[in-house]
Amino acid sequence: MGALARQVSIVGVSMTKFGKHAGKRTKDLACEATWGAIKDAGVRPEDIEAIYCGNAVDGLLSGQEDVRGQVVMREAGLAGKAIINTPNACASASTAVREAWLSIASGLYDVALAVGFEKLYVGDTAKTTRALATCTDVEIEGNMGVFFPGLYAMDAKRYMYETGCTREHFAKVSVKNHKNGCLNPHAQIQHELTVQDVLNSKMIADPITLYMCSPIGDGAAAAILCAEGIAKRYRSDPVRIAAIGMASGGYQDMRIDVEKPSATQMAARQAFELAGIGPEDVDLAEIHSAFSPAELFYFEEIGFCRKGEAWRFIDQGQTEIGGSIPVNASGGLESKGHPVGATGLAMVYEVVTQLRGGAGKRQVEGARVGLVHNGGGLIGGDVAAMCVHILTR
Amino acid sequence: MGALARQVSIVGVSMTKFGKHAGKRTKDLACEATWGAIKDAGVRPEDIEAIYCGNAVDGLLSGQEDVRGQVVMREAGLAGKAIINTPNACASASTAVREAWLSIASGLYDVALAVGFEKLYVGDTAKTTRALATCTDVEIEGNMGVFFPGLYAMDAKRYMYETGCTREHFAKVSVKNHKNGCLNPHAQIQHELTVQDVLNSKMIADPITLYMCSPIGDGAAAAILCAEGIAKRYRSDPVRIAAIGMASGGYQDMRIDVEKPSATQMAARQAFELAGIGPEDVDLAEIHSAFSPAELFYFEEIGFCRKGEAWRFIDQGQTEIGGSIPVNASGGLESKGHPVGATGLAMVYEVVTQLRGGAGKRQVEGARVGLVHNGGGLIGGDVAAMCVHILTR
Repeated sequence: MGALARQVSIVGVSMTKFGKHAGKRTKDLACEATWGAIKDAGVRPEDIEAIYCGNAVDGLLSGQEDVRGQVVMREAGLAGKAIINTPNACASASTAVREAWLSIASGLYDVALAVGFEKLYVGDTAKTTRALATCTDVEIEGNMGVFFPGLYAMDAKRYMYETGCTREHFAKVSVKNHKNGCLNPHAQIQHELTVQDVLNSKMIADPITLYMCSPIGDGAAAAILCAEGIAKRYRSDPVRIAAIGMASGGYQDMRIDVEKPSATQMAARQAFELAGIGPEDVDLAEIHSAFSPAELFYFEEIGFCRKGEAWRFIDQGQTEIGGSIPVNASGGLESKGHPVGATGLAMVYEVVTQLRGGAGKRQVEGARVGLVHNGGGLIGGDVAAMCVHILTR
Repeated sequence: MGALARQVSIVGVSMTKFGKHAGKRTKDLACEATWGAIKDAGVRPEDIEAIYCGNAVDGLLSGQEDVRGQVVMREAGLAGKAIINTPNACASASTAVREAWLSIASGLYDVALAVGFEKLYVGDTAKTTRALATCTDVEIEGNMGVFFPGLYAMDAKRYMYETGCTREHFAKVSVKNHKNGCLNPHAQIQHELTVQDVLNSKMIADPITLYMCSPIGDGAAAAILCAEGIAKRYRSDPVRIAAIGMASGGYQDMRIDVEKPSATQMAARQAFELAGIGPEDVDLAEIHSAFSPAELFYFEEIGFCRKGEAWRFIDQGQTEIGGSIPVNASGGLESKGHPVGATGLAMVYEVVTQLRGGAGKRQVEGARVGLVHNGGGLIGGDVAAMCVHILTR
C-alpha cells in the first residue's frame, strides 16, 4: 500500500430521510440524494465525470439486476457519464466512495459522484430477509439458514462469556443510539427507549432483542468528491478523505480464530497507516451497529480501547455525544436506519456534517477527525467487505 | 479528464475455454482463470493487494447475488484482500480492469487482479434469456419485452437502408469470425461456416439469423495488473494499458438521434485522447460483436472508417487476419463465445497474447497496439456501459 498521487476532498453531501417510503421507487430516492449532493456542492452536473453507485439487493426486491446505477442515473438526468456499480453487501456505499476516491487520486478525473440507495421495504418481511440472506455465500450459508442475527448473537454470547459484559450493556448501546436518533431529522426511528424497553422487546436471537436490531427501511445518500486542489471552487469548508482502508476475510476475531486479524482490524490499520494518525486522534465515529452488540466488538477492533473493554466505555458514557469518543451520533443503524446500500454514504454524510459544524443538536463540539466504519456480508464465516474511512477538516 | 499519476502494465492473463461447462460451478471457472493469470504473471498470491470482479447475471442464474467476487475469491484462496464487485452488464469485466487500473494509477496499490466470470448455461434457455433481459431498465424495457436481438435487428435494418449494406455483409462478418475461432483453442464454436450457412440458419430477428448471434456459454478470464515500474519483476514482456475510455448513454448513433455521440464514440475518443494516438495507429481490435451486424456499426463508431463504410471493409477482407486492421482475431463473440461477465477480460487476454506474439495460428504479425471494445446493457434506449481499452507493447 503506497501514498496517493493526490488528495481528494468531499464538497457535497446529502441523504434522504431513512424510513418506509411506500410511495417511492429506488429511482426516486437515489435522485433525491443525488440532486441534494449536487446542490450542496454547488457543482454543475456537467462537471461530474464519473459516478459510482452502491446498492446491495435491489435485484431481488425490484427485479432490477446488474445495471442499477445506470437506471437511476438516467432518471437523475446524468446518463452519458462513466457509471460503475459497486455492490458489496452492507459496504456497497462505502465501496462506491472508495472507488470514486481512487478515480480522482489517479489523476483521471477531477470530480466524481458516489451514491448509495436501497429500498428494503416491500411490504413482505420474509422477502426482504431472503434477499439480505444472499449477501452470503448462498451455497454454504444463505440457502442453509445461516444468517446475520444468529451469527451476531453467537458473537455476543462469546463476548459476554469472555469479558464480563452483560445483556444490559448491549441494551445501553441501543438506548444511546435511539437517544441520538431523536436529534437527527433523517433518522427512521425517533423515540427514546429505556434499557428495560430494549430487554423486554421481542427476542430475535438470544441475547439480541428486536430493539437491538436495525429496522427494515429505505433511503439514499450521496457525496460529491473532487481533487483537493479545486475543492475551494465549490465550498469554503471541504472535508479531506485522509484514508480509506478495505479488507475482506476476517470476522470478529473472537469467533473462529483469535490469531487471525479481523476485517475491521485490517481495514482500520490500513486507514490509520495511510492517514498517519491513530485511534486516539479520532473525534467521532460512525460504527456499523446493524445489531447493538456489534458496536462494542467493532469499537475494540478499530482500536479505540483494548480487547474486552468496550462495555466499560458504554457504562461510563464515553461514547455518548459529549463523551471522550462519541459513537453513532447520528443514531446508528438501530435508530437512523439501515437501507444497506445507502448506509456507508449516510455515515459519510454524518461525519462530513459534523466536521462542518452543521449537526445541530447532535453536534460533537470541535470535531476535526471523523471515522466511518461500514461493512458486511458473510463468506464462509468471514466478512465479505469492510471499509474504514478517515475524514478530516 | 487528466493524465494518470502513473502508468500500469498487464503482466499476466488467462482464460478458460468458453463453452457449456455443465459440470462446473461459477466458482470453478473463476478459480481456473485466476490461478492461470497468477501463474502466467509469476506473481505471489500475497503480492495481490486488491481484486476487482466482473459478473453480470449470476444472481438470477445461481442465486448468488451481491458478493459474488468474495464468494469465488474465497474458493480461490484469496480471501482477506480488498475485493470489489463491478457488475456492468456485458462490460462487467472491462469495468473490473478499469477499476484495477485506476487503483494502481492512484499510487495506493502496486499489484491488482481483475477477473470476470459467468455461467449462462443452466439447461434452460428461457431462464438465461430472462436473466440477460435484466441488463436493461426492467421497468421500461426488460419487463416489457424489449431485448437485445430485436434492438440490434432494428439497427441493422436502418444501417442497410442508409448505406447499401446487405444481409450478406452481416453474414460475412460471422463467416470471418468463425474462421478465426477455428484457430483459437479457447473458442466455444470451432467450425467454419459459409455465407449461405449463416443466411439459412434460423431467423432470430430479421435480418439477424442464429449464426449471427453469440451463443449461450460459460467461462472466465483474468489479468494481473501492476505499476509499470515493477512490471519487469514479473515478466520481460509487459503490456501497457495506454488508456481506458468509458461512457454510458448513447447507443448506435443511427437509431435515435444522429446528433448525439454514441457511447462507443465517447469512450473511444476518451481512450485515443489519453493514449495520444488515433484509430490509424491500431494494429488489431476486439470488437463487441454480440450480433454480427454490430461489428460493423462499432467499427465505424471507433473511428476505423467513415460512417456507412464498414461493410466495404468486410467485402475487401481488410478486417481479416492479415488485412489492414484485423478485427476479432479471437473468433469474436459469435465463435469464441460470450459468457457476458468474462467477455471483456477474454478480449484483454486476446490482445495481450497477440501483443506478446503468442497467438499461434491466428497471430497478427508485428502487432504493437491493440484495442478492446466491450460494452452493453440498455437503459432507456441507450447503452449502459461501454469501455474502450488501448493496450501497447
